Amino acid sequence: MPVPPPNLNPPFNIVRLSHVELRVTDLAWSRAYYVDLLGLQVTHEEAGTIYLRAMEERGHHCLILRQAAEASVGGLGFKLWSEDDLDRAAAWFAGQGLPVSWVDRPFMGRVLATRDPWGVPLEFYARMDRLPPIHQKYALYRGVKPLRIDHFNLFSPDVDKAVVFYGAMGFRLTEYTADEETGRTWAAWMHRKGGVHDIAFTNGTGPRLHHVAFWVPTPLNIIDLLDLMSTSGYLSNIERGPGRHGISNAFFLYIRDRDGHRTEIYCSDYQTTDPDLEPIKWDLKDPQRQTLWGAPAPRTWFELGSTFEGTTQRESDLKAQPIVAP
Amino acid sequence: MPVPPPNLNPPFNIVRLSHVELRVTDLAWSRAYYVDLLGLQVTHEEAGTIYLRAMEERGHHCLILRQAAEASVGGLGFKLWSEDDLDRAAAWFAGQGLPVSWVDRPFMGRVLATRDPWGVPLEFYARMDRLPPIHQKYALYRGVKPLRIDHFNLFSPDVDKAVVFYGAMGFRLTEYTADEETGRTWAAWMHRKGGVHDIAFTNGTGPRLHHVAFWVPTPLNIIDLLDLMSTSGYLSNIERGPGRHGISNAFFLYIRDRDGHRTEIYCSDYQTTDPDLEPIKWDLKDPQRQTLWGAPAPRTWFELGSTFEGTTQRESDLKAQPIVAP
Amino acid sequence: MPVPPPNLNPPFNIVRLSHVELRVTDLAWSRAYYVDLLGLQVTHEEAGTIYLRAMEERGHHCLILRQAAEASVGGLGFKLWSEDDLDRAAAWFAGQGLPVSWVDRPFMGRVLATRDPWGVPLEFYARMDRLPPIHQKYALYRGVKPLRIDHFNLFSPDVDKAVVFYGAMGFRLTEYTADEETGRTWAAWMHRKGGVHDIAFTNGTGPRLHHVAFWVPTPLNIIDLLDLMSTSGYLSNIERGPGRHGISNAFFLYIRDRDGHRTEIYCSDYQTTDPDLEPIKWDLKDPQRQTLWGAPAPRTWFELGSTFEGTTQRESDLKAQPIVAP
Amino acid sequence: MPVPPPNLNPPFNIVRLSHVELRVTDLAWSRAYYVDLLGLQVTHEEAGTIYLRAMEERGHHCLILRQAAEASVGGLGFKLWSEDDLDRAAAWFAGQGLPVSWVDRPFMGRVLATRDPWGVPLEFYARMDRLPPIHQKYALYRGVKPLRIDHFNLFSPDVDKAVVFYGAMGFRLTEYTADEETGRTWAAWMHRKGGVHDIAFTNGTGPRLHHVAFWVPTPLNIIDLLDLMSTSGYLSNIERGPGRHGISNAFFLYIRDRDGHRTEIYCSDYQTTDPDLEPIKWDLKDPQRQTLWGAPAPRTWFELGSTFEGTTQRESDLKAQPIVAP
Repeated sequence: MPVPPPNLNPPFNIVRLSHVELRVTDLAWSRAYYVDLLGLQVTHEEAGTIYLRAMEERGHHCLILRQAAEASVGGLGFKLWSEDDLDRAAAWFAGQGLPVSWVDRPFMGRVLATRDPWGVPLEFYARMDRLPPIHQKYALYRGVKPLRIDHFNLFSPDVDKAVVFYGAMGFRLTEYTADEETGRTWAAWMHRKGGVHDIAFTNGTGPRLHHVAFWVPTPLNIIDLLDLMSTSGYLSNIERGPGRHGISNAFFLYIRDRDGHRTEIYCSDYQTTDPDLEPIKWDLKDPQRQTLWGAPAPRTWFELGSTFEGTTQRESDLKAQPIVAP
Repeated sequence: MPVPPPNLNPPFNIVRLSHVELRVTDLAWSRAYYVDLLGLQVTHEEAGTIYLRAMEERGHHCLILRQAAEASVGGLGFKLWSEDDLDRAAAWFAGQGLPVSWVDRPFMGRVLATRDPWGVPLEFYARMDRLPPIHQKYALYRGVKPLRIDHFNLFSPDVDKAVVFYGAMGFRLTEYTADEETGRTWAAWMHRKGGVHDIAFTNGTGPRLHHVAFWVPTPLNIIDLLDLMSTSGYLSNIERGPGRHGISNAFFLYIRDRDGHRTEIYCSDYQTTDPDLEPIKWDLKDPQRQTLWGAPAPRTWFELGSTFEGTTQRESDLKAQPIVAP
Repeated sequence: MPVPPPNLNPPFNIVRLSHVELRVTDLAWSRAYYVDLLGLQVTHEEAGTIYLRAMEERGHHCLILRQAAEASVGGLGFKLWSEDDLDRAAAWFAGQGLPVSWVDRPFMGRVLATRDPWGVPLEFYARMDRLPPIHQKYALYRGVKPLRIDHFNLFSPDVDKAVVFYGAMGFRLTEYTADEETGRTWAAWMHRKGGVHDIAFTNGTGPRLHHVAFWVPTPLNIIDLLDLMSTSGYLSNIERGPGRHGISNAFFLYIRDRDGHRTEIYCSDYQTTDPDLEPIKWDLKDPQRQTLWGAPAPRTWFELGSTFEGTTQRESDLKAQPIVAP
Repeated sequence: MPVPPPNLNPPFNIVRLSHVELRVTDLAWSRAYYVDLLGLQVTHEEAGTIYLRAMEERGHHCLILRQAAEASVGGLGFKLWSEDDLDRAAAWFAGQGLPVSWVDRPFMGRVLATRDPWGVPLEFYARMDRLPPIHQKYALYRGVKPLRIDHFNLFSPDVDKAVVFYGAMGFRLTEYTADEETGRTWAAWMHRKGGVHDIAFTNGTGPRLHHVAFWVPTPLNIIDLLDLMSTSGYLSNIERGPGRHGISNAFFLYIRDRDGHRTEIYCSDYQTTDPDLEPIKWDLKDPQRQTLWGAPAPRTWFELGSTFEGTTQRESDLKAQPIVAP
C-alpha cells in the first residue's frame, strides 16, 4: 500500500524519543557494559536500578537499567512539548480505545502510560529533571563517547499499519523499504526531532525491540569502540559492522549485551526538518539498502530482538525476506 | 537585562534558516571559491547568477551568488511550515509596522519580503523547488564536503533588543554572552531547527552579516580544506581557526572571500530540540567562550562584516570589548 | 619449524620495496580505477603503458600498468642502498644458482633481473629518476589519497622456506602465523623499511601475488573510498573490509580490479626499526589474527591471486586452513 | 654554507632516537601530566623516578621523569644496531676529543655517555630491556594515545656546524631553513629511522632542548587532547597549535609542562628511507614554513627551552629572526 502523507497537524506535539528501560539479569555486568565500556554517565544509582544519560543530554536519563529475573524492555519514553500536549495525548489514546494511566516515575513530572495497538508500552511526559551540562567536561568522556539517544527500532508484524498509527501521532516518514511483489512496506523510518528517525519498524515477529541507538561524534569513535571491545572481553558482543547504511546514510555498529539487548552506535545521518521532505523508497532486494558497501547483515540481525514486558508477539504474514549473509 | 523566556507559541512557524544571496564583484572568482574550492553544488546558472545547494539539501538552493558592482548581502531566507504560516507572518510583520511585500523569486512559491527593525532584509516562504537527493552521490563530494547551511551570524548594535524581537518570532536562545558590568547581552545564539542556532547576534556596528555557516561531516574535513586553501592560492582567505568554540562547542574555521563575505565551516554542535533547554551563559571576559582552547580571535573577526543592501548602520553603544589577539 | 633469527649483516642492503608492474587487459579501465578512483598520480604515459606514483613518493613510479592480452604480474621491484649493493646482489643470486641479468628499464639506472627459487620475478636497482615533491600539492589529492606503496603479499607453497630465503637477504620477521599441529609457518610478514612488512607470504598455491598495498593517512580515507566505490560503479570490486587486522594492527580494505589484481588500502601499522624486535606469533585458529574484531575473511580472499609472468605454480602441501566466512 | 651530502657509510649505526630524562620539580604533578593526561604508560616507578613508554614501544622506556631541585634535561638516548657499533661509537667520540665514559643505567646493557661539541649529553646503547607488546591492549590507551617517541628538537647557536657534526654520525638531512641573506642554515631536520627527523636544530641560544615529540595516530587525537587539556586544568599548558607544519608536513600541537619542558604531539609526516632523498629547502621569510596555513608561531615558541644538565649556553651570532605572532 502507498505510504501515507505526513500529518502536519498532529493531535499532540512529540518533541523526540527520550528514554527506555532495559531489564537485565546481571546489573553489575550491565553497568560495566553501558557505563565503563560504552561511556554513558550514571546520574542516579540505587539498589537494583541505574539511571544513565549521554554526554550532551540535560534530561535526567535516557536509559534505565533495572535488575530483573528475566530480560525484557519497559516502556519507550517520549518527551512532549507541554503539559497541554500531555493531556491531549491522554485523550487521543483513550479515543483510540487504548489503555491510559498516569504513573509515578522518579525524576519526572506527570507521566502518561499507554500502549500502541500491538501492545508496545509507551510513556509520554513533558517534564523530566534537568541536569547541568557536561558536554564540555571532556575528562568524563569514555568508550564510544555517546552524545545522545537517537532512536528506537522495533520488529513489527504489520509495518504498514504501524506507519499509519505512528503517522497519525505526527511521526513523519523519511525512508522505507518496499516489497515490490506485494506492494507492502517491509520497513519504515519515522522522525519527530529532525533526524532520519526517532522510531523505526522492521518486518518480523513482534512487537519486539530490535535496538536502541546512540549518536556518537565520528566514525573513528566507532572504530575505537571496536578495538576496545575486541581486546577487553567483549568480542562476542560485536554483531554487525562497521558499515554505512544505504538507508539513513549513517555509519553504524551493532552490538548486543549479555541479555541480547541490541545497541546501535550511529553517526552522520542527515537533517529532516522540512515538512515537505520526500521519503526515500528502497527495494527489499537491494543489498545496498542495508549496507551501502554491499555486505549483507547476518541472520541474527534479522531474527533476534528483545521482548517488551506484558506483550504477546505474533508472526508477520509478510514472508518476503531480505538477503542475509550466507 | 535578563534574557527573555522562549516563546513556545510563536505567531508563525519558522522551520529553519534556508538561504542567502551574496552579491559579488567577480562572479567567476566566486564560483571557483564556493563551487570548486568549498564544494557547493550548482543547481542553476544563468548570466550573472548562480544557485547552489549543499550535499544533503533537497531544497533548490541555500546560496545565491549574484554579480554586482559592489559587494553586499541580499535577504536572509527562512523556510516556514505552511502557506498559512506565511500569511500569519505577513500579518505579524505588518502589525509591527514593518514593510511587507510579496516578491517573485525563481524556483520558489510565494515569498514574503520584509525587514527587521534594524533594516535587515528577511524573506519567508513555505515552498521551494525540491531536487532529488545527492547525499549518496559520493563522486560529487569536493572540497570541505558541505552538507547543509547551518546558520547566519549578524553584527547588531543592540543585541538585547534583537533577542527580544527574534524571540517573539519563536527563535529560542541556546547560549549567550553577558557583559557583567552593564548587565547587557553582548552576543546571543538562537535556533528553530534543533541545533545551537539558526541565527546569532554579536555586538557591533550593524546591522551587518558577520558570516554564514555550513555544516560539514567531521573536523578532518576542515583540516583538509585548510591544506587545500593554503596550497592552492587561498592562503590569505583563511582568517581564524581551526579551533573549538566554547560557545556551541563546535569545531570551526572562518574564511573570507575576496569581497569580504565570511563563511564559517562548522561541525559537531549539539541537539537543542527540548523546549525547556536552559540557555548557557558566558562571561565576556572568558577567553574560552570564543575558543575553548584559549586562543583569542583576531581583531578582523570582531570588526569586519558584510553590509546588507539598503540598510543604514549604526554603532553599538555597548562599548565593552572582548579579548582580541594582540 | 622455528622461525630463523634475523640476518643483521645481509649480503646486500635492500632499502625498501619499490614498485610492481601489473599487466591489465583494458588499460583505459585500469587508468580510471588506479588514477581517478584510487588517486595515484600519472608520471608518464605512452601507448600501452602508464607509470604512477603515490603522493609522498619522489621516485618516478611505484606502479606500472601495461596493456596485455592476459592479466599477470611483472617483476617485484626493490630499491637498494647503493650501486655496490647492486653488484653484491647480482653475485649473491648467481651464487644461489638463480638467473641473473641486467635489463633496461625506462626512468631507472642499472636494473638487475632475477627470480627467487619459486620463480617470482624480482628486480633490484639503486637509482630511479627522482621527481619533485607533491605531498603538499593538496589540490592533486583524490580518491583514497594514497601516500606510498607499502608492501607486497604473496601466496607461497612453502612459507617456511620463503622465510629462510628472504631472511637470508635481510628481510626481518615481524609477525607470523603458526600451524600448531604441524609446527609449520602458515604465513609470515617481513620488513626492510621499518614497518610491519615490505613483503609477506601466505600459504597457498603459488607463487602468486596476493596483493600490493598502499598506505593512506587515516581510516576515514578508507571509509571515503568505500562510499565512493559503492556509489560510482565499483561496488563489486570491494572484497573485504573495512576492518583491523590482528596481525600488523593495520586498518584495512581489500579491493580487486577487473583483472583480479588485489589492492590493500592500509594504514596505522607500527614502527619496527629495532634489530632486536621480537616477532609476534599468532595461532592459525585464532580468528582475531585476521580481523581483530572477529569477522573472518571471505573464501575468495584465501583463494584468488594474480599469477606472475613466466612462473609455474604448485599447491602447498600444508593443508591446514584458516576459518573462512561461511 | 651549502648543506653537506649525506654520509651513507657512517662510523657507527644509529637505529633511532630512544629516550630522554626530564628532571622535574614536582614529580606527582609530572606523573599526572605525562601519564594521566598524555597517556604514557608507567613501566617502572621508584622513589623519585618514573620510567615510561608509549603504546607501540617494546623498549623499556622512552621517557624518564626524575625529581630534582631544578628543572633540566639529562642525556638524549639513541639506540645503536649492535654492541660492535657501540664500541665504534666510543672510538669515534674519543677520536673527536670528546669525553667518553661507560655508565650504569637501569634496564639497559652497556651505555656510552658522551657529549657533542656544544656540551649536549648523549647516551648510546644497543640493548635495553624488552617488554611485551601492548599496542593491542586498547583498554590501556588514554589521553592523546601516544604511540612512540618521534624526535628531539634542539636550540643550537650554530646550526651549520651541528648539521656537519651530526651528519658525520650518519644523520641525514630531510628539510632545512636557509637564511637567504647570509647563506647560513637557520634550522635543520635530520633522521636515522626513516621519518622526517630523529633530531632537529633551530637557531637560538643553546644548546637547549626545544622539545621532545611523540607520534599519535591521527589529528583527531590531538583535537581530543586540546578538549581535555582546556577543560581539566591544563589550559595554560597549551602553547601553539593545532596546525600543520610546512616543514615535515606534520600535524602538530605544542604543550609545555609546569617546568617548561615542551612536548610536541605530532602525526602524519612522511617516509624518508631513500638514501638519495633530496632535502627540501625553505626560506626563513616564508611563514608557511612554520605553519602551512599561515599563522606564525608565538614568541615563546622561539625563545623558551629546557637546559641540559652541565652545559653552558651561548647566543647564536645568526641574528635573522622568523616572523612571530604579534
